[in-house]
Amino acid sequence: MQDLDLEAILQPGEQLDILKNSGLKIIQNRGKFMFGIDAYLLADFAEIRNEEVVVDFGTGTGIIPLLVSGGRAKYIHALELQEESADMAKRSVALNGLEEKITIVQGNIKDAQKIFGGNFCNVVVSNPPYMKTDTGKLNPSEAKNIARHEIFCNLEDVIKEASKILKSNGRFYMIHRPERLSEIFVLFEKYKFAARRLRNIFPAKDKKATMILIEGRKTGSSDLKIEPPLIVYETPGKYTTEVEEIYSRL
Amino acid sequence: MQDLDLEAILQPGEQLDILKNSGLKIIQNRGKFMFGIDAYLLADFAEIRNEEVVVDFGTGTGIIPLLVSGGRAKYIHALELQEESADMAKRSVALNGLEEKITIVQGNIKDAQKIFGGNFCNVVVSNPPYMKTDTGKLNPSEAKNIARHEIFCNLEDVIKEASKILKSNGRFYMIHRPERLSEIFVLFEKYKFAARRLRNIFPAKDKKATMILIEGRKTGSSDLKIEPPLIVYETPGKYTTEVEEIYSRL
Repeated sequence: MQDLDLEAILQPGEQLDILKNSGLKIIQNRGKFMFGIDAYLLADFAEIRNEEVVVDFGTGTGIIPLLVSGGRAKYIHALELQEESADMAKRSVALNGLEEKITIVQGNIKDAQKIFGGNFCNVVVSNPPYMKTDTGKLNPSEAKNIARHEIFCNLEDVIKEASKILKSNGRFYMIHRPERLSEIFVLFEKYKFAARRLRNIFPAKDKKATMILIEGRKTGSSDLKIEPPLIVYETPGKYTTEVEEIYSRL
Repeated sequence: MQDLDLEAILQPGEQLDILKNSGLKIIQNRGKFMFGIDAYLLADFAEIRNEEVVVDFGTGTGIIPLLVSGGRAKYIHALELQEESADMAKRSVALNGLEEKITIVQGNIKDAQKIFGGNFCNVVVSNPPYMKTDTGKLNPSEAKNIARHEIFCNLEDVIKEASKILKSNGRFYMIHRPERLSEIFVLFEKYKFAARRLRNIFPAKDKKATMILIEGRKTGSSDLKIEPPLIVYETPGKYTTEVEEIYSRL
């Protein structure tokens, strides 16, 4: 990093991090939002095939596009509502010279069809706000709240817009919370997604799941497979071999 | 068993088995249908509280009522369509002197409300036919096919009738297949069940799930917990400690 002029690149409060395996650079802001393990798990779960067009709903600082950029996607379009995050993401894309492959678009997931048009892409990935706005005390102007709570778009918007912009047989990959799983299945039915794969993420093998990964196919028949449990920690503070492998693969 | 006149008790093709922990006797017929691990896993998963009235949908030879009879239920009513299975179940109940606690009723799950009336019980448990009738070659007169395939009642009948006979806040416990999970959630929504607990059963920790256990509550709010994965085999042929414990507890 000696050849980078960090002062010219970073705004106050921002930091530059290097992704372990790819060596790609990402700008983040600890006071606003930092990516977590969920981004890695989703990027690993999503199957992206040769020359496919991918859209990421709610990209934050662009972590998912960066993680999958080494793979087979042709283009990745990433939608982010918050101007500040979208700006960080754009600068990260430029820093890595990935402008030909990744486009950051500032906008609301609710407007995805307006922005991209229908029948636009092969894959939608999303790590959307997990929490309903009626859970917890909120300041709706705060960046972290907007990223975590359904203030500007909700689960139905995410699934509806994904269905609209996907081509027939397109795939939708999402990471979410177990307590929303009923709703996800009901909305999949409403918006013509067939649930194809479900993977539950457990902090430890004897703990309740804290996240779920789900794949839906647009207008396919449901033939759900529940994949082997994904256990994050072998012992407190020590990742399982599988999680270590995901981190070192992406 | 020396004091039992097996010839007087058993019909041709039948056998008498002893449940490991309780010592209860059960009549089965290897050519028709024998209970499997799913009965134990469901009986373990279902929470039955003091003095509750329980209905078992599709009891087969009565395994679930026998397994939970040592617990806190006040009465267990068990519905079985097939005359031969219902008859075996009745004889097993009598053999164990449990006629005061367990009633076997011959009838179709579809008619549960007609049989029991609405608002009847606190708990419904079911290990229903798993497979759609369009999967696999079927002889609809065969006992095993009727127990395994949705020939005389389907998933919607099971969930609908459970909802009808349960009291408000009553609980429904079912074991089923992962590929039917989408449908289960959609039918839960339709018949006003809130999914409360989901447990996935994996033959081994690195294999796909082969069964799911689900709890729904009648007219509650959905706050689904995905419980720790239930792994059946530690190594091929060797049960995990958890499964050993379930077998020795029931």
